[in-house]
Order: sequence, then structure tokens, then C-alpha cells
Amino acid sequence: MSLASYLADEKLSQTIRLFLNVAISFAGSIILFKIMPKFKDMFIRADLKGTDLSKKNKIQIPEAYGVISGAFFLIVTFLFIPLRFYETLAFNKELSHHQFIEYLAALLSIGCMIFLGFADDVLDLKWRDKLLLPTVASLPLLMVYFANINSTTIIVPYPLRPWLGYAMNLGFLYYVYMGMLAVFCTNAINIYAGINGIEVGQSLVIAFSVLISNLIEFNGPFRDNHIFSMYLIIPFIACAIPLFLYNKYPSRVFVGDTFCYFAGMTFAVVGILGHFSKFLLLFFIPQIFNFLLSIPQLFKFIPCPRHRMPKYNPETDLLEPSVVQFYDKDLSKISQLIFKVFRLFRFIRVTEKLDDKDKKLVQYESSNFTIINFYLTVFGPKREDQLTKQLLTLQIICCLIAFMIRYQLSKLFY
Amino acid sequence: MSLASYLADEKLSQTIRLFLNVAISFAGSIILFKIMPKFKDMFIRADLKGTDLSKKNKIQIPEAYGVISGAFFLIVTFLFIPLRFYETLAFNKELSHHQFIEYLAALLSIGCMIFLGFADDVLDLKWRDKLLLPTVASLPLLMVYFANINSTTIIVPYPLRPWLGYAMNLGFLYYVYMGMLAVFCTNAINIYAGINGIEVGQSLVIAFSVLISNLIEFNGPFRDNHIFSMYLIIPFIACAIPLFLYNKYPSRVFVGDTFCYFAGMTFAVVGILGHFSKFLLLFFIPQIFNFLLSIPQLFKFIPCPRHRMPKYNPETDLLEPSVVQFYDKDLSKISQLIFKVFRLFRFIRVTEKLDDKDKKLVQYESSNFTIINFYLTVFGPKREDQLTKQLLTLQIICCLIAFMIRYQLSKLFY
Repeated sequence: MSLASYLADEKLSQTIRLFLNVAISFAGSIILFKIMPKFKDMFIRADLKGTDLSKKNKIQIPEAYGVISGAFFLIVTFLFIPLRFYETLAFNKELSHHQFIEYLAALLSIGCMIFLGFADDVLDLKWRDKLLLPTVASLPLLMVYFANINSTTIIVPYPLRPWLGYAMNLGFLYYVYMGMLAVFCTNAINIYAGINGIEVGQSLVIAFSVLISNLIEFNGPFRDNHIFSMYLIIPFIACAIPLFLYNKYPSRVFVGDTFCYFAGMTFAVVGILGHFSKFLLLFFIPQIFNFLLSIPQLFKFIPCPRHRMPKYNPETDLLEPSVVQFYDKDLSKISQLIFKVFRLFRFIRVTEKLDDKDKKLVQYESSNFTIINFYLTVFGPKREDQLTKQLLTLQIICCLIAFMIRYQLSKLFY
Repeated sequence: MSLASYLADEKLSQTIRLFLNVAISFAGSIILFKIMPKFKDMFIRADLKGTDLSKKNKIQIPEAYGVISGAFFLIVTFLFIPLRFYETLAFNKELSHHQFIEYLAALLSIGCMIFLGFADDVLDLKWRDKLLLPTVASLPLLMVYFANINSTTIIVPYPLRPWLGYAMNLGFLYYVYMGMLAVFCTNAINIYAGINGIEVGQSLVIAFSVLISNLIEFNGPFRDNHIFSMYLIIPFIACAIPLFLYNKYPSRVFVGDTFCYFAGMTFAVVGILGHFSKFLLLFFIPQIFNFLLSIPQLFKFIPCPRHRMPKYNPETDLLEPSVVQFYDKDLSKISQLIFKVFRLFRFIRVTEKLDDKDKKLVQYESSNFTIINFYLTVFGPKREDQLTKQLLTLQIICCLIAFMIRYQLSKLFY
């Protein structure tokens, strides 16, 4: 059997291509691991550095290291282009043009996000920009979706069908949803941060979950979509693992916003172009919970300090919930309501005392509104490495639940 | 006549699309001009700043400002995607898939180059990387060329046809040529720098020359290639003009390597995918001359100081050729030969004297090997704004010569 006829066999050539993808991803991963430490001085010199506040020794650690992972991801995926699309040339198959366009648009969106993430790390952009940037970077994706696919119809769950019918065309709203997905994924990972290894760790758990779901669906009707996803998620995993090894406790590098944006955009891209964005969101249960928890502080209902990561206690070497202090009188009516509800559900731990000067003023000291602080208020102070491990285990459990929902519960709805 | 039939008319819809391209480019240009000063503090705070050495007042000027132009270029070109490719969807024309792929690959290469240029400005990458980066960034371009076009045949000029035939297939060498074109274009602009406004100024002259040649060929047989080029070069011009206005004498911002890489890659992309790379190189006559002049210092035959820009004389407020000092004995045989040849052709101005201590050692003081210093040795010291104007005029004259060669002389060869 000649090479040409091998390649002409679509299923076989897909397997070969996947093998090639794994091979260059693996090679890239090894090289990345080797060369990563060499950039350290360059980052320190460029003032891309930070102090690990949760350690006894306050040493300078290079920051925004995710940019190296991101650059390697681009190199690996660029090199994969001829391996993936060789048969477009060899057999002039028009069919794969669509896939080629989607692949390029995916890389364009992810590449832009790495660039913008790095710009954020360097220039320290404003909050407003953090919402704007993923929107800009997801433009090529949405444009390609518009010009290439433009299917904005969703299948309606059983219980709602009497009212909405079997399928519903969301039209423009679907684009809004996709744009918001990119904004959500990038920022959800970015705000679930603050302890060694958590950003890359959670991203790796989600990426492996995506890969497993691709493998489960490999012989299903949407095979092409899932292979498309694998072509991106395998290089992502390959570039994230070396970073994790340097970023895990005790961190020798920080990953920066660059990595969070890079990871979030990669997930959004595979979710959107792989057509499993709803399933993808199920892997984000801890992130969604963290986002919901954070809303009162993100939207300034409750005062928000610059950093909300847990507080390091050098005497015990343990992390404790970090706190924010404010006065009762400073809260608006709606803020007071939100505060009461969060307190009622014990998402935050609150102590209150009367102000020393004005004995009528009530001063609150509340733990910050994040999943990490919530976890610490429930389970008590933890060593940093233990905390990361437990939160990543929680992430794994949530992803398992996601699979259960997808493959068991969803039968009730579709 | 309905909108659909308007769009179905290919020539008419091309004109409409060009008009839309000009419209969003113009809008982007205005917005860019308005918001550019607002980023100043952000850059200074991020330590992206430098001192203008050719001024009496040594004030801090933000550096790497080209990144804002680049980001705007990406936004404008992203927004253009649905305007450009709407009919792919509306009439499901398979034909434009090729163009869509090329457009995305072009943006991917340019986007990568902006990202890598910015990384260079921030991290101060090594010389080696400056050659590697454009190669990496041009990968998508070459890959798409390979998968999509793969025409590596060139038309042989008349005088060589008896030996080589009418056409010659360069095969792999053609890819090497294209890769080197990207490396050359990015670095050629980067080393022709050092006085206010010269980087953006020369890029604008070249960009306008490309645009004019596109317009000349607009009704020719390669119409599509030239329209493709215009879709990129018009937004480029739109994003470069505001930058020029802030960068021209006296500079309020510096453009950084980011801009040089961004501009160089844009030219390489339109040259390669627009299939007029040889013609494009004719617009680079001053850059090629500067590159040839620089070879002895770039490849370390002659000692090369960190900066080779002209020296500012605060007493006269004029720029003079900057110099490098070295001993006769430190030059190898080949270096001595190169030095003699350059001296013979008066590309450099050399003074020599005997060393104070060892009366036999000859010490040379030579002007640096760049076009700017060469110009100053020929025409004498200049005020910085005058120098920029004269060098840009030279660039315009060279581009006019390029047009003459292309449309008159080439008749003798093809």
C-alpha cells in the first residue's frame, strides 16, 4: 500500500495525523522544559518579576512566564499545519478548506490572546480592558463562525419544548453568547488564582477532561469536531505541563495573566468551533462558583482590595482567609442585602465590632469573596501545597460530575 | 437592483469592499490618533521608555509604541473579515475559500510578528532571536503557501533563458527565499533607524508605493492578488500615519522593534501572497544599501558599538556621523580587506593616528557603517528634522526609480 493510498484513507490518515500531533507536541514539551529556566534572567531584567507573598523567604520570581508556553504552543501548532493539511494539496480535497479556515482562525484568536495577555502583564491594563481584550481576540473566531458556519440554532431541552419547539434559532444572540464565552473563560481562570500552581493546575484538569470527552466521542457523529479539538488541546497540554512543573509549589516562575488568557481562549475556541460549548462549561463548575462568589466584589457592591489571595501566616506556615474591612454605613441597601445573603449561606466568615471612636458604627471584617477563601473558612488554614492539591482534587471531582451530567442526566433532557 | 445582485457582481462588490476597507481603516486611524497619548503613562510606568539622545533636553519618551498601532491594525483587519467574506456565506462561493485562507494566514503571521516584536522590546532578546523570530512568524505564511498554492516556479529573465529555459522550478529553495524575505524585511527596517520618524517614515513611503503599484495593476491579469494586498496595506497605512505624527521630530513616542517587525512582516506578506516579492524588493533599495553597508559591523568584521545612530552635537544642535575606534592590529586579514574597500569607495570617513603610547600602532576612527552616517559624511552635519526629511525624500526617489525599472527596464528582461 503506497503512502498516497494510506493518506487517501480518511480514517487512517486522521489517526496518522493525530499521532504526528502527539509527536511534535511531545517533542515541543521536552524542549520547552529544557529551555524554560534559561529565560529567567531576561524576565528579571525586564522587571517582569514578583515576590511570592506566601513564603518565608521573599525572593524575586519571574512573572508572565506563560508567554513562553504560549509562544511554544504557536510554534507547535504552526508546524502542524502542513502535516494536517497536506492532503488538501496532495488530493486537492475541497472538503478540508472549511477545517483549514477554522484551524487558522483558532490560532489567530489564541495567538492574539497570548499577545494581549502579555501586553496586560507588561502594561498593567485597566479592568475595562480585561473585558475588551478577549472580545477583540475572539473576533476572528466569531467572524469565521459567521462566514463559515453561521449555525445559530440550538436544540431545546425536553422540558422546554412545549413552549419553544425542538430547535430554536438564537441568531445574533448566539454570537453574543460566544463572545461572552471567550470573556468568561479567560477571566474565570484569571480570578481563580493566587496560590502556587492553581492557574496551570486547573487548566490542565480542564484540558484533560476536554481530551477525554474528545476520545469518548471519537467514533461518534461529530468525529471531525472532536478531532479538531484534539489538534489544539494536545499541544496545549504539552505546553502547559512544563510550565506547571516550574510553577507548582514552591513556584520558581509565575505564569501571569498571559497564561490565564491563553488557556481560557484555547478552551473557548475548542468549545465554540468544536461545537460543545455547553458541555465545556460543565468543566468550569468551580470557576463558575468562584465567579458567582466574586460578583459582589468585582462589581464593587462590597469593597474589593487589590489582592484577594489567602493571607500567609509566617508563624504557622499556613494560609488563612484574607479579609476586607468596611463599615456598615458604607454599604448601600442592595449591598447590605447581598452581604446578608452571602453571610447566611456561610460563603464568607464575618466578625463585627463597634468602632473605637464612634461606638455606634459597626465595622465588619469579612473574608474575601473567592472560592479559595471560602474553602479555607470551611476547612481551616492549610499549607499552600496541600491547599493547591485539595482544590485541584475538587476540580477533578467537578469534572467527573460534569461527565456524569453529560452522559447520564442529559438523557432526561435531550 | 437589490443588494444581493449588487454583491453577486464580482467587480462591483470588490469596489464596495475596497470602499468599506478604506472606511474602517480611516475610522480606525482617527480613533488611534485620539487615544494614542492616553497610553503614555502606562508605558512609562512599565519601564518601556528611553531618552532621546539627540536632544538638548533629555526627557523620558515612551518606547515600543508600535504595539498600539499593531493592535489597532489587528482590530481593523478582524472587523474587515465579515465585510470581505460575506459573499462566501451569502452565495456559498467556494472560490473565495483560498482567499479566506490566505487572508487569515497573513493576519496570523503579522499578528505573531507584532507579538514577538513586543516581546523583544520588553525582554530585549538576543541577536540570534532576531533572526529566529521572523522565521517562526512567517511559518503560517509558508505553510499556507505550501498547502494552498505551492507554486515554486519562476519566470526566467530573457538573457538567462538560453541556459535555464522559460520557467524554472525552484522547489524547496523558493521557501527558503520566502522565509529569508520575511527575515530581511523585518530586520532591514529595524537597522535603518536611529533618528526621529525614520522607521515609520520609510515604512509609509514603501506602503504608499505598494498601494500605487496595486492601483496600477488593478485592471491587470493579477487583479485578485493586488486587491488582496490593498486589503492589508490600506489598514497598515491607516495605523502607521497616527504613529508617524507622534514619532516625527521632535518625537513624543518611540516606535520600538515592535513597529519595525510589524511593518516588515506586512510587506513580506503582501509581497509573498500578492506574488510581487521581486518588485517589492525594488522599494527597499535604501534598506538593501544600508544592509550591505552594515554587513562588516553586523557580522563583526569591524567592531560594532551598541548604538550606531548619528552623534548629536549640543553646541551646533546638529547630527554628525558617529564613530567607532579600533586598532589596525585588531583586524584580521579579511577585515582589513573589507575596511580598505569600504574606505576606497568613501562609504566611511576614516581618520588615523599613531597610538600615544606605542608609536607604531595605528588607531583608526571610522564613521559607523550605516546609510545615515554615510549620508552625513557626504553632505555634512544636519539638523535632525532636515536629515529625516532628506532621507525620506531619498526613499521616495528610490521608489520612483523602482517604478521606472519595473515598467520600463523590465521590458528588456521579460
